[in-house]
Amino acid sequence: MKRWEGWIFCFGILIVLFTPLTHAQAQQNMSENTEACLSCHSQLHPGIVAEWKKSRHANTTPMEGLKRPKLERRVSNEKVPSVFLKNVVGCAECHTMNAEKHKDSFEHHGVKVHIVVTPSDCATCHPIEVQQYGKNLMSHAYGNLNNNPVYRSLADEVNGIKSFEKMKITFRFPDLETQLDSCLYCHGSEVKVKGKRSRKTSMGEMEFPILSGWPNQGVGRLNPDGSKGSCTACHTRHQISIEMARKPYTCSECHKGPDVPGYPVYEVSKHGNIASSLGKAWNFDPVPWKVGNDFTAPTCATCHVSLLVNENGEVIAERTHQMGDRIPWRLMGLIYSHPHPKSPDTSIIKNKGGLPLPTELTGEPVMQYLIDSKEQEKRKMAMQKICLSCHGQGWVEGHWARFENTLKTTNEMTLTATKILLTAWEKGAANGLAQKDSIFNEAIEKKWVEQWLFYANSTRFASAMAGADYGVFANGRWYLSKNIQEMLDWLEFKLQTLPGKKGKK
Amino acid sequence: MKRWEGWIFCFGILIVLFTPLTHAQAQQNMSENTEACLSCHSQLHPGIVAEWKKSRHANTTPMEGLKRPKLERRVSNEKVPSVFLKNVVGCAECHTMNAEKHKDSFEHHGVKVHIVVTPSDCATCHPIEVQQYGKNLMSHAYGNLNNNPVYRSLADEVNGIKSFEKMKITFRFPDLETQLDSCLYCHGSEVKVKGKRSRKTSMGEMEFPILSGWPNQGVGRLNPDGSKGSCTACHTRHQISIEMARKPYTCSECHKGPDVPGYPVYEVSKHGNIASSLGKAWNFDPVPWKVGNDFTAPTCATCHVSLLVNENGEVIAERTHQMGDRIPWRLMGLIYSHPHPKSPDTSIIKNKGGLPLPTELTGEPVMQYLIDSKEQEKRKMAMQKICLSCHGQGWVEGHWARFENTLKTTNEMTLTATKILLTAWEKGAANGLAQKDSIFNEAIEKKWVEQWLFYANSTRFASAMAGADYGVFANGRWYLSKNIQEMLDWLEFKLQTLPGKKGKK
Amino acid sequence: MKRWEGWIFCFGILIVLFTPLTHAQAQQNMSENTEACLSCHSQLHPGIVAEWKKSRHANTTPMEGLKRPKLERRVSNEKVPSVFLKNVVGCAECHTMNAEKHKDSFEHHGVKVHIVVTPSDCATCHPIEVQQYGKNLMSHAYGNLNNNPVYRSLADEVNGIKSFEKMKITFRFPDLETQLDSCLYCHGSEVKVKGKRSRKTSMGEMEFPILSGWPNQGVGRLNPDGSKGSCTACHTRHQISIEMARKPYTCSECHKGPDVPGYPVYEVSKHGNIASSLGKAWNFDPVPWKVGNDFTAPTCATCHVSLLVNENGEVIAERTHQMGDRIPWRLMGLIYSHPHPKSPDTSIIKNKGGLPLPTELTGEPVMQYLIDSKEQEKRKMAMQKICLSCHGQGWVEGHWARFENTLKTTNEMTLTATKILLTAWEKGAANGLAQKDSIFNEAIEKKWVEQWLFYANSTRFASAMAGADYGVFANGRWYLSKNIQEMLDWLEFKLQTLPGKKGKK
Repeated sequence: MKRWEGWIFCFGILIVLFTPLTHAQAQQNMSENTEACLSCHSQLHPGIVAEWKKSRHANTTPMEGLKRPKLERRVSNEKVPSVFLKNVVGCAECHTMNAEKHKDSFEHHGVKVHIVVTPSDCATCHPIEVQQYGKNLMSHAYGNLNNNPVYRSLADEVNGIKSFEKMKITFRFPDLETQLDSCLYCHGSEVKVKGKRSRKTSMGEMEFPILSGWPNQGVGRLNPDGSKGSCTACHTRHQISIEMARKPYTCSECHKGPDVPGYPVYEVSKHGNIASSLGKAWNFDPVPWKVGNDFTAPTCATCHVSLLVNENGEVIAERTHQMGDRIPWRLMGLIYSHPHPKSPDTSIIKNKGGLPLPTELTGEPVMQYLIDSKEQEKRKMAMQKICLSCHGQGWVEGHWARFENTLKTTNEMTLTATKILLTAWEKGAANGLAQKDSIFNEAIEKKWVEQWLFYANSTRFASAMAGADYGVFANGRWYLSKNIQEMLDWLEFKLQTLPGKKGKK
Repeated sequence: MKRWEGWIFCFGILIVLFTPLTHAQAQQNMSENTEACLSCHSQLHPGIVAEWKKSRHANTTPMEGLKRPKLERRVSNEKVPSVFLKNVVGCAECHTMNAEKHKDSFEHHGVKVHIVVTPSDCATCHPIEVQQYGKNLMSHAYGNLNNNPVYRSLADEVNGIKSFEKMKITFRFPDLETQLDSCLYCHGSEVKVKGKRSRKTSMGEMEFPILSGWPNQGVGRLNPDGSKGSCTACHTRHQISIEMARKPYTCSECHKGPDVPGYPVYEVSKHGNIASSLGKAWNFDPVPWKVGNDFTAPTCATCHVSLLVNENGEVIAERTHQMGDRIPWRLMGLIYSHPHPKSPDTSIIKNKGGLPLPTELTGEPVMQYLIDSKEQEKRKMAMQKICLSCHGQGWVEGHWARFENTLKTTNEMTLTATKILLTAWEKGAANGLAQKDSIFNEAIEKKWVEQWLFYANSTRFASAMAGADYGVFANGRWYLSKNIQEMLDWLEFKLQTLPGKKGKK
Repeated sequence: MKRWEGWIFCFGILIVLFTPLTHAQAQQNMSENTEACLSCHSQLHPGIVAEWKKSRHANTTPMEGLKRPKLERRVSNEKVPSVFLKNVVGCAECHTMNAEKHKDSFEHHGVKVHIVVTPSDCATCHPIEVQQYGKNLMSHAYGNLNNNPVYRSLADEVNGIKSFEKMKITFRFPDLETQLDSCLYCHGSEVKVKGKRSRKTSMGEMEFPILSGWPNQGVGRLNPDGSKGSCTACHTRHQISIEMARKPYTCSECHKGPDVPGYPVYEVSKHGNIASSLGKAWNFDPVPWKVGNDFTAPTCATCHVSLLVNENGEVIAERTHQMGDRIPWRLMGLIYSHPHPKSPDTSIIKNKGGLPLPTELTGEPVMQYLIDSKEQEKRKMAMQKICLSCHGQGWVEGHWARFENTLKTTNEMTLTATKILLTAWEKGAANGLAQKDSIFNEAIEKKWVEQWLFYANSTRFASAMAGADYGVFANGRWYLSKNIQEMLDWLEFKLQTLPGKKGKK
């Protein structure tokens, strides 16, 4: 071996070691249409093109994906149409897919392009995931809010405009833009084609569709091809990185506030601490995801979505995009915690009182719409199997017993608040259901909402994930208790000062 | 050198460079018992076994540890029993240690195994740390809450269940599971053996103890061997990584909420910003921890626990697990800030008013239980020596003068709130000490609690660590001021509407 | 090539690859004065010396910096005085610069040293940045708070001490230390030399200036050389790393609380998620900063400060330290959102009502002090050009339309709150402008402040950066609506219980 030979192969080795997959080969497999897209758009939108280039989509073909052993496959359609098999998944593949179904398709340099890539488009390669997601509550997040009169009314009360004149507040319903900026950001919008417009571009005058409800990447988006949902809510464009979807920051986009405190609770849990402290050495990319080897504490995705295996490659949990699969109880967003609903479309539910709620106002579950205890047990076992990867049986059972006790006690504290509210309605201190008034617009009603939407929720999440203070002073039991006292104080003051009721107590 | 020789040694070098300590040698030194544990448990609990394999415990023997120069030692017992010297610290070493003392020991494949590893077990190799920790307030966190009637009553008010009937609230004391899910998560539980049970396992029918108060890793846990505390509260199982204990996320598990806002304040401090922005290049593992070389801004552990040296290896701060060593003032959790208590057991304290508090209700410190100004000065100097590693004398003195002024002003704002409360009690607007009623159950009492437990605390932490807005609008002075106004408003409304007291002002 | 030769050059290559720039060469270019500083201070303050050694300042000379192609230059003065050209920028360069102008200069081992390094000092090499920063609102943050009677009064109400005696609250103005610990931490202090003092040091007795208003790194600091601002607010001493200034944690130091929620909103935005999930692979150091190549989602600096180029090196955005350059609307800190002010000194503004505010109390902008719609359009285009690096025109326009609608609706909700307050003043339920009372000291006034300072702000930030729940339940619209109800309730209760006004409604 001569000196220059040594130089060359040493450098060779080093280059191989330090170079991530070169894009050279990938680009050989690019479709002509995608090449055409890139010829302009890599200048116009360098950010997303760079993201895409780092993606698996840009560096593998579906055919290569299908050659992987079954458990390692990310492509769930064994019969990907042959036209897509040999090219990497580029701009054109997604943005011209199913053009005929897309009302947002438009003629663009001789190709029918659409703006909004939808689960139906993704289903070309990932049909099982899309099908599962369709059974996920999230895919119905638009309708579950908008077609449920109680939640519609809560959203209006949050987003509507109030004016004040002569000691009276008047109310104006929220405009669409406000709704899009608010609840629908996460729940998803209805994306519709309003018309077309011509615009000058660096390539000359061109025509584009005008979309309403756009931009939006909410989980329950109604798409211009008739499909529901947005894969990019979690699998962020255009890198569509599984690493990112598995990191808790993705979930934090919608699960951060006092009504949905999943992320902040996770962050201060032991699991969150391990992930923050040691996670930089973990491998978030492999499929399947190997417990212990790839990571040593769960993120949100670990427990709720991912395909997990042990050291021997034996499956601990199947991949699911129907997240309810491992969730026996519904913790959040409803007045009381209750068994998970059967259908992802919860707008069909009606309780005995005629309200579209899965429990009565006094907490009893409306069982015909909810999973039974057998199904609950099955889901609990599926989740506990994951817990048992790191914890002993006694630990796991102790944790769950405590958690289910907390579901009961938070329901009790909500019932107490509800009874105060019902008394306020009854005694005329506030206008409620009987008066056909909004049940969310008076101060005591808002406190009631916070009892379940903020404090009971937070306490339950803290219990489920061991987030300690979120069950105590950080929107937890302290507030559950304080709020009851303040509701009663409000009621007493109000009754004292009601015209003709002074002194009555 | 021939081509293949070149290949081989180049790869050799690269392998050495890229391979973390191989576990090969470690596993030669594994005890037979630990090997036996792993033969099943690496299948059953791959997560924790993988964690352990990455740990120093799995890769070094106590004997190797004892050979290190004194300052570099992590083992503080120079006389580790010889039986433990030559094996790595594996499952069996910890989970069979001191079997005779452990009420949670049980027969498991011919070995006496216990579930709960305790500070007494860890003391086999780390006696100085365990001894120090025993003098730390944290080790008494269970009793300091439960054996102090004032705090016991606060906890009950937080966790108890309230019901509403006929305009009255009734109260039910919290059950044990709720307490475990709430305050005791951080304070620690009492872990007791309730009995035994037989359970089917993949290895056949086996018998296990049933524990109450389990799971728990709270800092003041009462263990089945009679010891107090849980090393794993910070040194998370089973990697027991010093890197993790030194990262602020560990402290955030219990110091995140409005009552204990250490972590959020740190996070937005200049120190926290430096750690978040540049910390990925720091070395969190070395003992001793070299200021400047290993890190350039402190984390929680830097100031409160770690052994720090300068470039020349000269000691800046001794390691301490009695965290009070560098803390002259107690900032949090009490009605007023005051000199640090002498004993970690604060349940022994009684003020002149007969309450188990380190100050009178009006703020005067109960000095016989608290460190004197000389000891305060000593601790302040110990802390300032760390500050001076990066800051000039003028900077440090300016910072501390400002901080101590804030202790005074937050105490004043708490006194004002207390006087309003005392007036409410006196005038019959609320029931307090004289009526032998809980001092935490009425709305004005809860506001009073928030004055000191949330707002004064937050303001002091913001001052101590320069967390800016946590002393202003983020639970800081804005709320200290607003809360006083609201307490007075409440009192005035209440007095106006008290039966027979209308119009009195 | 013999075996030992192979060894040597293989190691050589590896060393070069794994060693960050060695400091050897840098230290050849160190000035004698800096060497003298280090001879003691590397012992005394190892932390900051280590930081500095990692800095570009310690490893490059201005002359080397000036040789870079124009767009890559970090030194904006083409005529750096020759005395500074050939040495790295060390202790002495900054801390003895412009000694004659520095009232905090003192004799130190024969050199005139000053403690507070100021923008005027930095301007030696970075004059354009300093000049731009002088036009940034931030550089006037001290005066904009202290010379504006309305904000001065708000700050006093936050920081002042309240006492309670005989059902009355009395007020004491805040001391300087409290102000420094509170608002001025971010806004900046006035640093003044109060005198000198002699102190024993390890080098013997030495004399140092005594500074008031120190320590402080607030953005609008008034410096002892007459300059305004502190570059180290963002470019943290002594590494002065551009990486750090570009990371969002830096901004979080002052933009974290409910009044300034930029960071928390960013954190849960899609952009923040991408940065948290994938940012570890980004390059935060290059100048210019190449979109897509160096990063794939913006941080705060990307949109507000940095020089951005596309793949071809074409400029997308010029570097600016006058952050208003890309900001058409002012979102935060004021009662109503309005066009950005023309001058960074906002204490000169007066509305028709005589108040130092950029809008009337009822929301109409005071246009003579504000940029016109043409300038707004220009700034909007500058910002949108950045958006367009990754987003299509329709997306960007949709986003901005929604955002500007939110400015309107949040202004409406603030107007409603203001009208309730004005009614309270008018009906004598609270004392306001007419009574020459503080407009911030009563409960309803504090609620009014929270309407704009917390909830409207938060909703606008959530809209601007797509932070979802910060516009809904996390200090967003839910509170805008609830607060109006509570203000009215307060007013009604108050009117009911006003002496001589009972029953009036």
